[in-house]
Order: sequence, then C-alpha cells, then structure tokens
Amino acid sequence: MQDPAPYHALVRRPNARSIEVIDQRVLPHAIVRVTIADADAAALAIRKMTIRGAPLIGAIGAYGLAMALDRDASDESLQRAHAALDATRPTAVNLRWALDRMRDVLRDLPRSTRADRAWHEADRIVAEDIAINAAIGEHGLDLLRRIAQAKAGPINVMTHCNAGALATCGWGTATAPLFMAHAQGMPVHVWISETRPRLQGANLTAWECEQRGVPHTLFSDAASGLLMRRRDVDVVLVGADRVAANGDACNKIGTYEKALAALDNGVPFYVAMPSPTLDPQLASGEAIPIEQRSPEEVLAISGRDPYGQITSVAIAPAGTRAVNYAFDVTPARLLTGILTERGVIGANRAAIASAFPERFRT
Amino acid sequence: MQDPAPYHALVRRPNARSIEVIDQRVLPHAIVRVTIADADAAALAIRKMTIRGAPLIGAIGAYGLAMALDRDASDESLQRAHAALDATRPTAVNLRWALDRMRDVLRDLPRSTRADRAWHEADRIVAEDIAINAAIGEHGLDLLRRIAQAKAGPINVMTHCNAGALATCGWGTATAPLFMAHAQGMPVHVWISETRPRLQGANLTAWECEQRGVPHTLFSDAASGLLMRRRDVDVVLVGADRVAANGDACNKIGTYEKALAALDNGVPFYVAMPSPTLDPQLASGEAIPIEQRSPEEVLAISGRDPYGQITSVAIAPAGTRAVNYAFDVTPARLLTGILTERGVIGANRAAIASAFPERFRT
Repeated sequence: MQDPAPYHALVRRPNARSIEVIDQRVLPHAIVRVTIADADAAALAIRKMTIRGAPLIGAIGAYGLAMALDRDASDESLQRAHAALDATRPTAVNLRWALDRMRDVLRDLPRSTRADRAWHEADRIVAEDIAINAAIGEHGLDLLRRIAQAKAGPINVMTHCNAGALATCGWGTATAPLFMAHAQGMPVHVWISETRPRLQGANLTAWECEQRGVPHTLFSDAASGLLMRRRDVDVVLVGADRVAANGDACNKIGTYEKALAALDNGVPFYVAMPSPTLDPQLASGEAIPIEQRSPEEVLAISGRDPYGQITSVAIAPAGTRAVNYAFDVTPARLLTGILTERGVIGANRAAIASAFPERFRT
Repeated sequence: MQDPAPYHALVRRPNARSIEVIDQRVLPHAIVRVTIADADAAALAIRKMTIRGAPLIGAIGAYGLAMALDRDASDESLQRAHAALDATRPTAVNLRWALDRMRDVLRDLPRSTRADRAWHEADRIVAEDIAINAAIGEHGLDLLRRIAQAKAGPINVMTHCNAGALATCGWGTATAPLFMAHAQGMPVHVWISETRPRLQGANLTAWECEQRGVPHTLFSDAASGLLMRRRDVDVVLVGADRVAANGDACNKIGTYEKALAALDNGVPFYVAMPSPTLDPQLASGEAIPIEQRSPEEVLAISGRDPYGQITSVAIAPAGTRAVNYAFDVTPARLLTGILTERGVIGANRAAIASAFPERFRT
C-alpha cells in the first residue's frame, strides 16, 4: 500500500548530494525544512535531535557517511566519519548498524567509486526501511483485525512517544498498522501519551495523526494505567530503539511502566521492531546503554506561547536538580509479542533467532 | 516535634473572621498570599485550585462554612453552604468529612451561637490535622529508620504529586517523615516526580524541599520505573485523596503505575493516610468518583518564561483532543502498608477496621 502522507521525514532529490529533513524540534508549531549537505551537519542534526527516531537516525547516518566520502574518500575519512556519526547518540542500535553496513560495503572498494556507492547504499537502506515499515504495517493490520473482530466500535490503540513516519523513512513502525487501518477505512482510535520530557507524543504523533485524519486523544503519561483499568485500551503498540537477543526491548522512557500496566490489566502489549533495531550481540537488555540527556529537558518545557512564538518555560524552582534518562528497558516477560517485518514473533531468543537466522550467524 | 517550615498553607490570625492562604497556582514562580473572607471565595479557592491537597481542602471547607454562618446562621444557610462547598471537588473525601462534621456539630445549636462554634470547630479540625501529620511523621520516621539500617548512605524516598505541608495544615502526610528525618539530621534524598498535568511535584514538592533544605531530584513521571529498576529508590511514599474500607487508595493520577513498578522491583510502597481520608462507607475503590478536569491542563503547560513572567505554552497541534483524569485508584494488593496517625497498618479491611473502629460504627 502506498503511504498517502503529505509529509516525509527525509527526502533526497534525484541525484542530489544532500538531503532535506523536517526540523522535528519545532513541530507542530512550525514546519521548517532543513538541508543537510555535509557529514558534520548530519552528525549535528542527530545529536541536537533536529531529527530522531531509530530507523531515521540510521538513514541520516548513512547519508552523512556518503557526504564525508564526497569530500574525501580515503580510509581515514571513512573511519573518521564512521566514528563521529556513531558517537552522536548511544542507545538506538540502528545508527551503528547502518554505519557498519556502509563501512563493510565501502572499505574494499577503490577510492574513486566509494562516494557514489555510498549514496547508492544509503538509498538502499532507505528503500529497505520503507519496505520493512510496509511489511510491519501489513502484519500489524492482521493483528488489529483479529482484535477488532472480538469487539464493537473502533479499536483503541495506545502508543508512546513517536514511532511514526517521522521516526522512519516510511509508514513508521508502531504507527504503520494504525495508519494503514485508517487508510483502509477500518475504525481506529489512537491514545497518545505526551511523552515527557521532550513531548514527542504531543508534538509529533498527534501532528501525524492530525495530518492523516486519524482519530486520536492525548493524555499525560501517568494516565496510561487508569485508561487500561477503565478498559479504554484494546492493545498497546510501541516502537523500539534496541531489542536484545532475548527480546528485552529498550524504548522511550515510560514504556516499561506501560507494559506493567498492560500486564496487570490483560491488555496485549506489542513492540514494533524492524530488524535493524535487533542487537543479536546483546544477550539481554541489561547491557543496553541508556542515554542521559540534559536536565534542562526536565526542568523546562517548550511550546507555543499566546503570541504564537515558541517559548520555553521553567517548571521548577531555579537551581532544582533533575535526572533525564531518555530510555528504559522493558523485560521480554512483559511483552505479548514482537511485531517485525516477518510477522509477529515471541519475545524470546529462540523465536527471534528463528525469524532472523542471518543476524545470528557469527 | 515543632515544624520549622518558613511557610504555612493556611493561617488564621487571632480572632480573625477570615483566613490567609498561599496561592498554589503560581508557586514556585511567585509567592502570593490571598485572604479568603466569605464562603463563595472559599468555594472558588477550592474549585480553582488556589489551594489543594485533601486535608487542606477539608480545613478550608470548614472555614468556608463558618464564614457562611457569620452572614446568615439559619438552617437554610448552613445547608446551602454545605452543598456549595461540597460540590467544588469530588474525589478527596476529606472535604465531605469536614463539612459533615461541621453540620453535625452545628445543626442542633441555637442560631446565635452557631457562627462562633463553627470557627471553633474549624480551628479544631486544623489542630487535629497538625497532630495527625505529626503522628504520621513519627510512625513514618520509624519506618525510614528501619530501612536506613539495612543500607549505607542516604535513604532514597520517591514521592508523587504534593502530599506536603502545602496539602495540609502541618508537616504534610507523605512528606512528614522525610521532613522530620531531615530536621533530625538523618540523611534523606527525595525523588520527586513532576506530576503532569498540573506539575504539583515540580511546582510544590520541589519548592517545599528547597525551602527546608531537603536534598531532592526531579524526574519526569515516566522515569519512575527505570529509577526503581536501577535500585535508586529505597521506598515509595505517597499521599491519598480517599482510601476505601478494603485499602484501595485513590491518589493523584500516576500513583497506580508507581505501585506496579514498586512491586515489580521489590520496593516497599506506602500510602500515607490521615484518618479523615478514610471512607469506611466504600467497600472498594471502584466506586470512588474520579474527577475529570479541563483538557487544557494536558494541552498547555504553565511556567516561568525567560522574562520571568508566568506563561502558558501549548504543546500539541491546535484542536487536539485530550483527556484529563486527575486521580487513579491503586488496588490494596499493591500496597506494602498504609501509614496512619495510629501506625503502619495492613491495606485490608480487617486491619483498617481494627485501627479505626470508631469509623466503622454505624
């Protein structure tokens, strides 16, 4: 199914040696497109979260490497760009996956062909991501249909943060089934948790639903348990930044609590995982590095003031100490299943290795 | 122990027929004191949340009734003021408890003595609340001491919302043990969840800790599970707005998820309940009315802008739908115990009825 979205997180114009992205830091208050034309700018866009989302970070990293090779196709340049881009953000494994893939394809090529091949390989990563999103959407749609058959009225899906088209090159991961369901006329309603501190649910997922006309309701993160107890949620569907070989799933902070609430209320809970988000090297989620970001993100909140300007307001006494872990790990035991481009699989090593055997070869 | 706090949520000057409160809607950005001199103003202060906190609402309600009788001491006036004040906020049972107590004391008195007796009874409610807070603090201190003995370094206590001195007439409920521990030189560190949507943790509890010099760290609500998994939390201590006869505890939205995370990580979880917060008429928490407040509280956030002004910023696309349930109910099965003025008791009907037999007489 072709995505009818009127926006794209990432665009490469034909034969361009640059890319265009939407500045996700100012959505939904302003739509600002930014051109990225060199590797430093790509690294900065990832680090400053102009763009974010595990699959999108991987694609931007790949293009950043291509831009570095346009300037200097030497081994040193390749190595330097790989290291600089890899150091931008630690948790999502897609970035490392894309950079390693680029390096493995490029390093044995003659210098003269490296840059063109790098742009081609980055395009392939994007094309694959689009296909993966579509396949996740189709499998997720089957899941939603089965749940919908057992009840009257629209199916109520809770999601967290933004695992949408803005986080990928296609339909999104967790959102793909929802957006496809809506595009096919299946009644669906999305419960969006605002996702403090950076509010990607309120800022991005609500905007995507609005752009597509998908019915949705926003709630403060802490209300997810109550909504499930009220039986207002049929299924929870979230994205992932890294999934360990045993199915432990690292995702935006707050995912773990939603999984606990889902289990306590018998609500099925699925993590959408495109295969580049799988880290087969990690036996369990305990070793996943959890990014700590600036306490300022907790202490102040950015939004649209009464004059339409984007303003940041402080919410605590000046000088308050704060912690800001960006992700948490949901133990595999809390997951109903993992939604992948190869279908819904169990959250355990045997099921994951059986679905993605090529990732487990040494 | 005398509370050394440099602030008081509620002050009645000697023989005054009015009270002074701190406007909690603008804390911590400004300290604004407001005089309440008639029953309508008292009702408005509760409804608009100039003041909040279950025990404090009860006290303000009682004074509001006294103010009504100052103007008109008739049966009709008593009944009207009772109804108007009772209708301001539905969830915390302390308001109804205080208003019923006032009515029961006053209705059989001659009109000429009603108003003076009303002021006296409201003063008694305040004095009892101060004593209850102190007793909760002492029993909680024993609890903290036992936990502290089993570990090195400061004891890390997580709390939610504001069950502090600003929510009561004394030390606070959940905060009383923390504030007493700190006042006695026992090393304590408070994890404060910001408590969206109204941010009472960031606005009020952080301010109270700052005023008292109690070490504290703020975090976004969704991080409580991760903090517990990291073993950074020794005990969770929260307040309550209404506790059913079986121990089900209604408190600020998000309490339920914290209790689930505490259970999953073996962290003890206590609800501080002054006895006026007990509703012995309710067999379980399912019948507790959950207040729904304006979606605007979810859609916009108020804070201190870069010019020092209090500004509200919108966080979602214009026209976004939101829900705003202010409370949730934590099932008794998730509680380690209930901290009361008569000691720590089990979260079950037998233990509660045994500790407060006079509340269960028909």
